[in-house]
Amino acid sequence: MDLSVYRNSFLSFLEENTKLKEPQSLYDPISYILQLGGKRMRPLLALMSVDAFGKDYKIGLHAALAIEVFHNFTLLHDDIMDDAPLRRGKATVHEKWDVNTAILSGDAMMILANQYLEVYKGDVYKKLMQLFQKTALEVCEGQQFDMDFENRNDVSIPEYIEMIRLKTSVLVAAALKMGAIIAEASEEDANAMYEYGLNLGLAFQLQDDYLDAFGDPETFGKQVGGDIIENKKTFLYLKALENLEGSEKKQLLTLFTTPQENVLLKIETTKKLFIKSLAVSAIEQEIKDYTQKAFNVLDGVSISVSTKENLVAFGHYLMSRKV
Amino acid sequence: MDLSVYRNSFLSFLEENTKLKEPQSLYDPISYILQLGGKRMRPLLALMSVDAFGKDYKIGLHAALAIEVFHNFTLLHDDIMDDAPLRRGKATVHEKWDVNTAILSGDAMMILANQYLEVYKGDVYKKLMQLFQKTALEVCEGQQFDMDFENRNDVSIPEYIEMIRLKTSVLVAAALKMGAIIAEASEEDANAMYEYGLNLGLAFQLQDDYLDAFGDPETFGKQVGGDIIENKKTFLYLKALENLEGSEKKQLLTLFTTPQENVLLKIETTKKLFIKSLAVSAIEQEIKDYTQKAFNVLDGVSISVSTKENLVAFGHYLMSRKV
Repeated sequence: MDLSVYRNSFLSFLEENTKLKEPQSLYDPISYILQLGGKRMRPLLALMSVDAFGKDYKIGLHAALAIEVFHNFTLLHDDIMDDAPLRRGKATVHEKWDVNTAILSGDAMMILANQYLEVYKGDVYKKLMQLFQKTALEVCEGQQFDMDFENRNDVSIPEYIEMIRLKTSVLVAAALKMGAIIAEASEEDANAMYEYGLNLGLAFQLQDDYLDAFGDPETFGKQVGGDIIENKKTFLYLKALENLEGSEKKQLLTLFTTPQENVLLKIETTKKLFIKSLAVSAIEQEIKDYTQKAFNVLDGVSISVSTKENLVAFGHYLMSRKV
Repeated sequence: MDLSVYRNSFLSFLEENTKLKEPQSLYDPISYILQLGGKRMRPLLALMSVDAFGKDYKIGLHAALAIEVFHNFTLLHDDIMDDAPLRRGKATVHEKWDVNTAILSGDAMMILANQYLEVYKGDVYKKLMQLFQKTALEVCEGQQFDMDFENRNDVSIPEYIEMIRLKTSVLVAAALKMGAIIAEASEEDANAMYEYGLNLGLAFQLQDDYLDAFGDPETFGKQVGGDIIENKKTFLYLKALENLEGSEKKQLLTLFTTPQENVLLKIETTKKLFIKSLAVSAIEQEIKDYTQKAFNVLDGVSISVSTKENLVAFGHYLMSRKV
């Protein structure tokens, strides 16, 4: 399994299928955001899954595109909601154009994503659409929980995990299951691929939380400590708060609730508390557990041993990333 | 054909199917906007179309709901873009909650609309989805053209007609065609219902433009002259500009391009120019022509004479409205 084959094939397909149409003011921002790059993890997983069940991965290209366009639609609307100026180092759509353009182009992307699935026939089409719509709604729910959490001081760790499951993991899981559906795998196998993706997605998001605080500034794409600066209630914060007592607990609460003049000091102090509270060891354990859970699910799937090894290798590759 | 039977049945179905779910902050605004009322014209047309082909109209309820939820999603996002404070006399969602909530709840509504169609089986499901997605994308394109026109001074009447076709008429047309698809009418008949709806929709929107300037303030729901106040390039304005010459043309241009202290005077002067330029007689003729075109399409459809008479009566009812 050579990821670059999938990647190149997907990138050509994306290029071919994002031709400009009228009104340009609607379609220009769509082609702009789609060409900003990114890991393209979700579409690659869809293609990998088709391949895993012994079919030509190319029959998965339309679904891969649907997933990537949907994912970028969520980024576009999330960037408006977060008032983010940059995405992958370039101006966000609402900055480069305006909020109205970003809203409407996002809406159009969600519809385009659905249309890409129309190449699939009969039962496969309906199964894909049902999963895709269910997943899309869950992603919206996850984003809403994330926004709600900003104004709440009683978020529990299970609630946080449920939020990242909805906001991030279900789409990773759906990408893999859609590949299985297109390859006409058994329902049992398709569901197992979903579970593999769901657990891998949770591990991936927790890894993201960890890297945001402890990543190498040289290789990490975003500003290290960004979540701390924004007082985000991540796993690390919630776990530290759960484990700390007395003056240290109070210190962490103060850092996250009162404006801090020295931002670098805030980041350093918070990271020390994350380590001391054993929140860091806890997140490392969670990442390992979810990754292992993802691998265990593969045991029962009717795919070759070498394919399983590839999927496990992919999991290790994702979890060893520094960006 | 008793419209109130469809209406009551639809309203109960809407009520049953907009139960509250978690996160409430996502679903509350959805049930709020759906309960603001409105003519419910699009869902009624879908039910009427199922009935016209001799099937129980109730099998169309899910499609009717999908169309109404989609329509309300477009209102929700349009209200953000227009910065509108009121919708049907009540606070808009972005005013009552905030812009982020309005964006995300709108996104969720588009997905929910698609999900309502999942009750339909096999070919019917795919035909409905394809038409629904194509229509949804056209509505976005129409909204974008409408926004683009605000900054252009060279909009032609054919461009304006194309804009309202996309923004308004295609969804009316799709509602009727979806009813025909559900009733498993022939493709020819389904397309004829689409054409009936498209022409009726154009007549309806032009009637709206006319009433905005010349409606009775006692019965017209919105502020009479609203389009004139906002310098909207409606059919009346574009036609008057085309027909007027010399000082009168200059007067109209000035009214629409320089701030006017006396708004009532602006409305009165503009209306006089609309009449004098024969833009009013032109729009009345267009409304008649599109309505007649809608009725003519019905000639070839395999439905009973009395059903045709009902659809013609409905057209007359719509065109005689004062609100």
